This record gives sequence, structure tokens and C-alpha cells, in this order.
Amino acid sequence: MTYEEQYARYRQMTEETLDALLSDGAFARIPSKLLQSMRYSALAGGKRIRPVLLLATTEMLSGPLDEARVPAAALEMIHTYSLIHDDLPGMDDDDYRRGRLTNHKVFGVGPAILAGDALLNGAYECLIGNALRYPAHLPRHVQAIAAIAGRAGVGGMIAGQSIDLESEGKEPELATLRYIHEHKTADLLTAPLEAAAAISGADDGKREALRRFGYAVGVAFQIDDDILDIVGDAAQMGKATGMDAARGKMTWPALAGLEQAKAESAALWREAEEMLSVFGDKAGFLRDFADHMTKRKN
Amino acid sequence: MTYEEQYARYRQMTEETLDALLSDGAFARIPSKLLQSMRYSALAGGKRIRPVLLLATTEMLSGPLDEARVPAAALEMIHTYSLIHDDLPGMDDDDYRRGRLTNHKVFGVGPAILAGDALLNGAYECLIGNALRYPAHLPRHVQAIAAIAGRAGVGGMIAGQSIDLESEGKEPELATLRYIHEHKTADLLTAPLEAAAAISGADDGKREALRRFGYAVGVAFQIDDDILDIVGDAAQMGKATGMDAARGKMTWPALAGLEQAKAESAALWREAEEMLSVFGDKAGFLRDFADHMTKRKN
Repeated sequence: MTYEEQYARYRQMTEETLDALLSDGAFARIPSKLLQSMRYSALAGGKRIRPVLLLATTEMLSGPLDEARVPAAALEMIHTYSLIHDDLPGMDDDDYRRGRLTNHKVFGVGPAILAGDALLNGAYECLIGNALRYPAHLPRHVQAIAAIAGRAGVGGMIAGQSIDLESEGKEPELATLRYIHEHKTADLLTAPLEAAAAISGADDGKREALRRFGYAVGVAFQIDDDILDIVGDAAQMGKATGMDAARGKMTWPALAGLEQAKAESAALWREAEEMLSVFGDKAGFLRDFADHMTKRKN
Repeated sequence: MTYEEQYARYRQMTEETLDALLSDGAFARIPSKLLQSMRYSALAGGKRIRPVLLLATTEMLSGPLDEARVPAAALEMIHTYSLIHDDLPGMDDDDYRRGRLTNHKVFGVGPAILAGDALLNGAYECLIGNALRYPAHLPRHVQAIAAIAGRAGVGGMIAGQSIDLESEGKEPELATLRYIHEHKTADLLTAPLEAAAAISGADDGKREALRRFGYAVGVAFQIDDDILDIVGDAAQMGKATGMDAARGKMTWPALAGLEQAKAESAALWREAEEMLSVFGDKAGFLRDFADHMTKRKN
């Protein structure tokens, strides 16, 4: 199977699981308008990077792929809730996301707040329900949930969002931007690797390698986003470029220079690939993933 | 120990646990402004009914009280997040809560959205971390988390909030109001009873009695709130009375008449007390709780 075929397979598994979970009666009776708004944002396409990483890493570690489906989808629910809330007035106040109107532009601000809350709480409902389905593996699943909750939480993604919001209008600093990239982006990309390691019962050495892979991929991914906002092609990006500068948002190239940003990204991708050596040939997919990411145009 | 002393003891345990959990480094490194806004709302006093019910029920069932402290505090974090988000513009748009400015009036809308998200996610971080501390009781704790997540979620409290928001400006109906009371209020009052039953390993009969007690208490509590809004004394309530009518909000007395509302509430409190018979003398605190609630003035 080629890398593209394997990616498509993991993505398809994610879509199917999300579609099944976000149905009335799947894990709860959900009022129809609320469900509609949850589905609008959660089933809006996207690369599904986080669930793909969770599924691929579980398979690489010879872990139970079936048991990883719900955690993969739940992680995407958490990612989706963070986008809905980030787009709200009072936060980034965005009208478009992935080329479509944002949740609050379609359903209203109140319902969008609730849709985000519903996806966040729903992710834990699904995670806990899934853990209880595998009593023999319960401790592993609870550890995976702990990793996801920690990375999504007040010391992780929410910390990044909070400092991002606080730093608006202040003198930009590279240390602050690094903190934001580490937490707002890298933490939720590290979560699937740690969760897969927990579900698969990986040893400490492998866990640490995966954690460092996730960190490097996450920060590099966000620096690349900053670079693409400057040098990217609006048509390929699916959104306007140069937006960060126009809004006065901190970016790595703006604070460190474009060449230094490219060098930092390249070094991180190199470190990510080095972290995979402990997995030998089994890391083919993650290696290809890193290769493709370094060449991405959107 | 009198009922008041016992209530004060459970409440004190809750305050101490919340204060300890909501500290930088307790379960995560939390940015200082984010932590400040979380603490502003979570440590604002209040009756702490949900954690008190969880602790009292665990003790009644001879369950492990120490293991129930974090779940009790986490439930209050969930209750607090729901109030912060409910008060936001786009939702109820309230300036005051418990006689103090609402979170978004003090910290801004964006930070208030994040503070709510942080308390919701933080509740699960604390719940999962607590469960992992008791490996021998892990399944019981995970079942307790499942109960809390379900009652707080899209089939529970969030469903109630969603239908409440949807029904604004529509022809009011008693069936809709019952749905809102059942989900927006009763579900999160049933959660501590179900969680305590799970943590204590109660049998199915006791679980069912506690579930029905929670439902009756929750709906009666909300009908009483509606009644107090009409007949209550503003000074005792700590907020303006007659507000529901002024806002055109549905209330039980408005839809069914004041006498019928009082009769419905009385019947539910009676049912709540009946549900306690299976626990005999051990239910003294819950019996007193119901008695006091029927006589409350705020």
C-alpha cells in the first residue's frame, strides 16, 4: 500500500467513526439542532492529522487498531471544539474556516458556544465509554485519556490559546510565540502519539521517542504555517495569505526572519525523523508523513 | 453532628479540594491570568449542592470518602463552567451572578470562553488523574466519570441548555419547560448521586433509588426556583426577583399556575423522600437535605 492509500484508509476510518458517533442515540440522545451544528463543524473535511497519527502509531506499535478508532475520533472532536471557540467573536472573530462559514455565522454565537462545549464533553463521553468496553485494557485506555486530557487542557492547548489571546497588542517576543506554538499546536499533535503509546502498552523509551516526535512535528508544522502565510499561494491554501501580518499576529518569520524560520523548521523535521529510528522499518508511514509535511503547500 | 454542621463539613471539604486543585502545578502548569479567572468563578461561594450530595451519599453508602473528594470538586468545576458560558453574550448575557460581576464582565468574553473550557477540560483531567490513583477501584471510578460525563453532556445538561436557547421567543409549552428542567438542572443534580453510587459499589436497587431521588430533587429544585422568582424576597435571593417574567423566560408557575407549581414541587419532594426508605436510618442527611430544600427562601 502506498503512503497515500494508507493515509486515505486512516482518514476513512476517522470519517466513519466520527459520522457514527455523531448520530442521535449513538452515545446519547442529542437535540437535532445541536447535533446538526456539531456535525457541521466536525464533518467539514480537513486533513484529520491527529486521528491519522493516532491510528498509524497504534498500528506501528502492533496495538489494537479497533480500540483506537474512538480515541482517534474523540481527538478530532476536541480539535473541532477548539476551532469553533477560536473563531467566536471575543476570540479570533473569524467568518470563514476551511472555505466555509464558521459555526457561529451559520448557527449563532450561543449555539456555537454550546456546540463547542458539546464536542469537548462528547469527546470524553466517547473516550470513557470506549474504555469501559475493554475491561482487560482499562488501565491503558485510562492512561490514553489522561494523555489527551492533559494535552488538551490548561497546561496544554488551552494554555496556548490563553497566552495567544493575552499577547494581542503587546510587543511580540519569540519566546512567547514559541510557547504558543508548543501549546496551542504541538500539544494536540503530541496527544495522539502518547495516546497510541498508552493503548498499545509501549515501553518508556518508545513513549519518549514518540513524545519528542510529536513535539518536533507540532512546532515545525506551526512554523511552516507561518511561512506559508507569507510565501504560500492563496488558491492552494484555501484561504487568504498574508492575513497574519495584516492582523498584526505574531509569526515566526516576522520575529526571527524568513531564513531562520526555514532553518528552524528543517531542524525540527530532521529531529522528528531521528526519533523514528527506534521503530526501524515499522515507522515507514510516520517517516513518509514527515517527508510529505516538509513539502506541503497548504 | 447537626445537619448544618455536617453540611458545613462537606462544603468545607469541597472548598479545600477546589482551592488545592485550582492552583498552579496541582494537575498542570496554568497561565496566571487563566488561573485567576478560573478561580474567580469556581471559588465564588455558592451552596455547593452537587459536591455536598456526592460526599454525603458516598458516606451514606459507606464508600471511600477520600476517593470522592476530587470527583465532588470536579462536578463543581463542571457546574461553574456551565454558569460562565450561560452568562456570556449570545447566551443569557448576564452582568451579575451571585451578587458579583460575571466572569466575562471582569476578564472579557474571550478569556471567559477559555475559562469555561478550562474548567470543563480540567474537571476531566482531575477525574482521570484521581481514578488512576486508585488502581484497585479503577473500574468504579471510570463508571463514576461515565455517569458525570453523560449527565453533563449532549444528552444531559447541554441538551437542556440547547433547547432552552432554541425555545426563546417561541410559544412556551410545559413539555418543553419540563425537558429543560430535567436536563439543564436535574441531570447535574443526579450526577453526584450516580457517581457516589459507582464509587461506593452500590447495588442496582440502590442506584435506581438514588437516580430517582436525584431526578425528583432536581426538577423540584428548579420549579421552586421559578416560584421563588415570583414570590421571593429580593434581599434574601441575592438577586432581583420577577426577572424571569420580565425577560419572557418560561417558568412553571407562568405555564401551569402558581398553585399547580407548588403542588408539583411538593409531590416531587415527597417522592424524593420515599426513595430514601431503602437506606433506612443512614439516609438522615439526605432526608434533612430534602426537608431544608422544601423550606428554602433563596
